[in-house]
Amino acid sequence: MKLYDGGRAPNPRRVRIFFAEKGVPLPELIPVDIARKEHRTPEFTRINPSQRLPVLLLDDGTALAETIAICRYIESLHPAPALFGAAPKEAALIEMWNRRIELGLFTAVAAVFRHSHPAMAELEDQVPEWAEASREQIDDHLVLLDLQLGANRFLCGDELTVADITAGIAIDFMKPSRIPLPEDFTNIRRWHGELSARPSWKV
Amino acid sequence: MKLYDGGRAPNPRRVRIFFAEKGVPLPELIPVDIARKEHRTPEFTRINPSQRLPVLLLDDGTALAETIAICRYIESLHPAPALFGAAPKEAALIEMWNRRIELGLFTAVAAVFRHSHPAMAELEDQVPEWAEASREQIDDHLVLLDLQLGANRFLCGDELTVADITAGIAIDFMKPSRIPLPEDFTNIRRWHGELSARPSWKV
Repeated sequence: MKLYDGGRAPNPRRVRIFFAEKGVPLPELIPVDIARKEHRTPEFTRINPSQRLPVLLLDDGTALAETIAICRYIESLHPAPALFGAAPKEAALIEMWNRRIELGLFTAVAAVFRHSHPAMAELEDQVPEWAEASREQIDDHLVLLDLQLGANRFLCGDELTVADITAGIAIDFMKPSRIPLPEDFTNIRRWHGELSARPSWKV
Repeated sequence: MKLYDGGRAPNPRRVRIFFAEKGVPLPELIPVDIARKEHRTPEFTRINPSQRLPVLLLDDGTALAETIAICRYIESLHPAPALFGAAPKEAALIEMWNRRIELGLFTAVAAVFRHSHPAMAELEDQVPEWAEASREQIDDHLVLLDLQLGANRFLCGDELTVADITAGIAIDFMKPSRIPLPEDFTNIRRWHGELSARPSWKV
């Protein structure tokens, strides 16, 4: 296997952290420079027509795109620890929280970054109104996350799951998106401090 | 189990079609009227703080939200037919396509609907620029879908999977969003015609 990687971008980081939390060594990395638009070249578009990173290249030549599809594939080859859960209800609640964060906080932060960060102006047709409307939703998403983390060490209980990786990276992504994390989200701060101290978070 | 249902809205339909394709009878439905903002009441917010439909209420009182989390839970209780796939690579490619469509076409069509349909003006702070930018992306998503359906009967091969349900509903959702499907997407038209003729599509 080889992993087409995108450096500091959030989705490539999610996948590298997932490998680390699974205790699975990273495959050979093929760096793709997003700032230089290497993900938009004809060569890369043949690998992933969606022009997104990362992509896991399997030994038979199959190009597997989409962060969570890659993570699930790794989990199916290496079931323990079960970062997507094991028992049906537990797995369903992890999937619920992973999607709730992805479709909520993560998407909103990404929209602020994409549509307002000066560095993205060359890569995207920026829509400032999209950034602004997304920015206004973020507090509601943080309230929901903080509430859940007030009642649980990790999002879905006592153990880290894929939902924590998604949510932790969404919080990390707020910094380059220039969105401050208000002081009073003390549960998010406690949990994010714990995540950031894990060896996986350095990858 | 009980299912908090949202009528003709796309996500409630995805779940009802999933039950039908699995051959699993629908649980008792509890209708929630989105037009009357019943999903925004304090009572429903306690069930799903994200204020989204549908929600599967388990017998132990657990409220399971998020369309795909509900579908995966049903699949874990009733493995056949495996609409999320069985072997690791097959399951990973189904997950890739489901997410590619969700994060691409489905999200773009939903944004057009939410931010431009007159009926949504009362429910949402509409951002016309968001609708317009999303509308401009749709053709690229359709090209990708049409290409895949030119090479396969269904999105991931000879059998219907959850990715077809997601994609078929995204195409259905174009109509109320007032987005025409250009005539020349003949593979999408052939496949969507087949989907629409299935008994599951009537639920």
